[in-house]
Amino acid sequence: MSINIKRTAQKRVVIVGGGLGGLRLAEDLKGSGMQVVLIDKNNYHQFPPLIYQVASAGLAPSSISFPFRQLFRHRKDFFFRMAEARAVFPDKKILQTSIGKISYDHLVFAAGATTNFFGNKDVEEWAIPMRTMSEAMGLRNALLSNLERAMTCATEEERQELLNIVIVGGGATGVEIAGAISEMKRYVIPNDYPDMDASHMHIYLLEAGDRLLAGMSKESSDKALTFLKSMGVDVQFGKMVTDYRDFRVMIKDGTSIATRTFLWVSGIRAQPITGIDGDRLGRGFRINVDEYNRVQGLDGIFAIGDQCLMTADAAYPKGHPQLAQVAIQQARLLAQNLRKIDHGDASLTPFHYKDLGSMATIGRNKAVADIGKIHTQGFIAWLLWLVVHLRSILGVRNKLVVMLTWAWQYITYNNSIRTIVYATKPKMIRERIKREATTHLGEDLMEEEKE
Amino acid sequence: MSINIKRTAQKRVVIVGGGLGGLRLAEDLKGSGMQVVLIDKNNYHQFPPLIYQVASAGLAPSSISFPFRQLFRHRKDFFFRMAEARAVFPDKKILQTSIGKISYDHLVFAAGATTNFFGNKDVEEWAIPMRTMSEAMGLRNALLSNLERAMTCATEEERQELLNIVIVGGGATGVEIAGAISEMKRYVIPNDYPDMDASHMHIYLLEAGDRLLAGMSKESSDKALTFLKSMGVDVQFGKMVTDYRDFRVMIKDGTSIATRTFLWVSGIRAQPITGIDGDRLGRGFRINVDEYNRVQGLDGIFAIGDQCLMTADAAYPKGHPQLAQVAIQQARLLAQNLRKIDHGDASLTPFHYKDLGSMATIGRNKAVADIGKIHTQGFIAWLLWLVVHLRSILGVRNKLVVMLTWAWQYITYNNSIRTIVYATKPKMIRERIKREATTHLGEDLMEEEKE
Repeated sequence: MSINIKRTAQKRVVIVGGGLGGLRLAEDLKGSGMQVVLIDKNNYHQFPPLIYQVASAGLAPSSISFPFRQLFRHRKDFFFRMAEARAVFPDKKILQTSIGKISYDHLVFAAGATTNFFGNKDVEEWAIPMRTMSEAMGLRNALLSNLERAMTCATEEERQELLNIVIVGGGATGVEIAGAISEMKRYVIPNDYPDMDASHMHIYLLEAGDRLLAGMSKESSDKALTFLKSMGVDVQFGKMVTDYRDFRVMIKDGTSIATRTFLWVSGIRAQPITGIDGDRLGRGFRINVDEYNRVQGLDGIFAIGDQCLMTADAAYPKGHPQLAQVAIQQARLLAQNLRKIDHGDASLTPFHYKDLGSMATIGRNKAVADIGKIHTQGFIAWLLWLVVHLRSILGVRNKLVVMLTWAWQYITYNNSIRTIVYATKPKMIRERIKREATTHLGEDLMEEEKE
Repeated sequence: MSINIKRTAQKRVVIVGGGLGGLRLAEDLKGSGMQVVLIDKNNYHQFPPLIYQVASAGLAPSSISFPFRQLFRHRKDFFFRMAEARAVFPDKKILQTSIGKISYDHLVFAAGATTNFFGNKDVEEWAIPMRTMSEAMGLRNALLSNLERAMTCATEEERQELLNIVIVGGGATGVEIAGAISEMKRYVIPNDYPDMDASHMHIYLLEAGDRLLAGMSKESSDKALTFLKSMGVDVQFGKMVTDYRDFRVMIKDGTSIATRTFLWVSGIRAQPITGIDGDRLGRGFRINVDEYNRVQGLDGIFAIGDQCLMTADAAYPKGHPQLAQVAIQQARLLAQNLRKIDHGDASLTPFHYKDLGSMATIGRNKAVADIGKIHTQGFIAWLLWLVVHLRSILGVRNKLVVMLTWAWQYITYNNSIRTIVYATKPKMIRERIKREATTHLGEDLMEEEKE
């Protein structure tokens, strides 16, 4: 295999990762006169803020994913390749991927972050994370399958394990999925499982710290807690999860909770890449960058969004929060700076994050929002949340489908995508996945690139 | 595990399979005074006629699947269990499933048919079938993944293997998927893959017989062929596929076609069940039934739809075609007859199939329809096809989403659900699937059923 993209007289920008940052960068480089190559392990862009609704059976995966090739139709000098980035050879300006090597003039890491299990093997083995579309679909299947089995298991003990849901991590994702599952418990379960006592379903939200939504205002944290409690979620603070054994979540204070639905949304770590040494990484394995998102000392290499750590922004000496807006704003600026570099203009603009606010939704008419000095909770925040997210979904068709689905749910109190379904993996594909997973890190494939 | 459904004074009807027949039967038994238990390996009903559009990235899986529990909300004396039927013990009136045993008064097999590979192991191993939602999702992923790899493979030979699509079987499914893929080739590929020559993509439709849509009129068969040819599909007759080796489809006449996208929609066989002996099976492993859909000699056991073979209907001495309408009509009648049996009324009504016609769609404005003596092809047939299928989709939300999606595609020439995505399978679920797959066929679990 080879990447198979012709080198031209144009400079080449290789972007690793088509999340909110990588996608924005690729879009903003339109007409820059540079060749843009986007590499992503998926063939589609996914919209992270709504992934939890796929997990809670509210949205179809297709409503919040968008094929890259669709997004970049009719775009000149743009190339997409579905591949995993494996290693970078900065001296040679070459990136090794699962399907071959590619040379670059500018390389931008925008691969985001992945779930952090903090080295706990049992947790990594058994917990269900929820960062990606695939994981959210897996969680939906597991959640529903556990409910089905709660109807038919042999012992009361196992039934309770199946009906207990333990969510670890009180950030936005934890709060949002806890709220969504509690609405399912309230509005869906009694109708769908008339011969099951829904009150036996117990939703725990465990947070190691002393508040929810640590990145938001105190009012919003408090209100989120009030909302969740009113919805029957058992929120517990100071609960540091240490292990998972015999279907029990083990907590540092010596207590434990039995569950077969164990969600882990407790921490993230930047995507790793071979060739960026450990001494270039900061907190959370993020790649250290300067105020222009450059990786110091590695010519032509940049990192943006969740994958990078910038301490040069005066207002954020410990680095920015790992939020969509940071990635998007860094991408916008980097596109401008790359154009300058391409034109030999040395007057690059340093990055300053403009906080546009943050919000989280907990349930029907229940959300919290901090926008500048304005902190609002309840119906207004919820409406705001709807509008902001609907606007951000790519594509008119997707917007329409999501709007229709939300309206439907609001009226009927019913999230109807409750199917347990897995795509088959034909042998041809299984073999290919196996082969590409073991692409070696040698340097012998380079001759295949055409000049 | 146990089925865990209380026996009452009511008679119990156990239905195996919630396809078009099983679902209709369960619905028509509403208010019958009997306890109805529906067993299906999936937790949702799927709509077979549109599964091919999931494979061709036209429809989201959720648009044409519907959770059983949703369908039977507020229904008394109805129970759903997600399980696989394994074996029946007719003497004891007990059905063994993957999650335990269940006793019955009336047992109805409505599990339909599965792909028939006619004993060819290589074909079974490598070919992609398209009977279920999971298989259609798998095919979509494989199709798109092969296109991605056609961009990056090392040799011209492999590229051609990736761009050749071989569909075996010229029935409705083969014709419809061939048409859908050829529209993707025409309208989507040139935009999505500007650096690929779409003309290298070659779609073969191989049929062993001498015409397409063998169950339809000669005019419709001919017109379907004309449509497909005009759309660039290479239709070949008299092609009996014998094997698949080294990425080549081997044909009995000594020729072969290289491909890595090998679709098998060439034949079906009834779902097997242990306990129904071979001498009770007819053509295609279908369970022989009398004119009341009773399995002769097995008290209280019935079979309907694709899974049964009825030769007592005078107009169909060789049995009925395996079509949705047969299953639905048999289900309707059986519901009436079961009520009679329950009331001790011996005057059962024998089944006579009323052919409501059949249709197949090939592409935009292109369909064929035989309705009684009326055979129409083209735009009118296509409109008819749209209306009939839209009407048959369950649920208002699903109808709306499908209508919106179709309208969108019609206007934009674009099927936009082109994502390659697999749900993860958390360890908890993997272990359970493994365990349930090996449920033994003993009889020791019976005591768990409560009286």
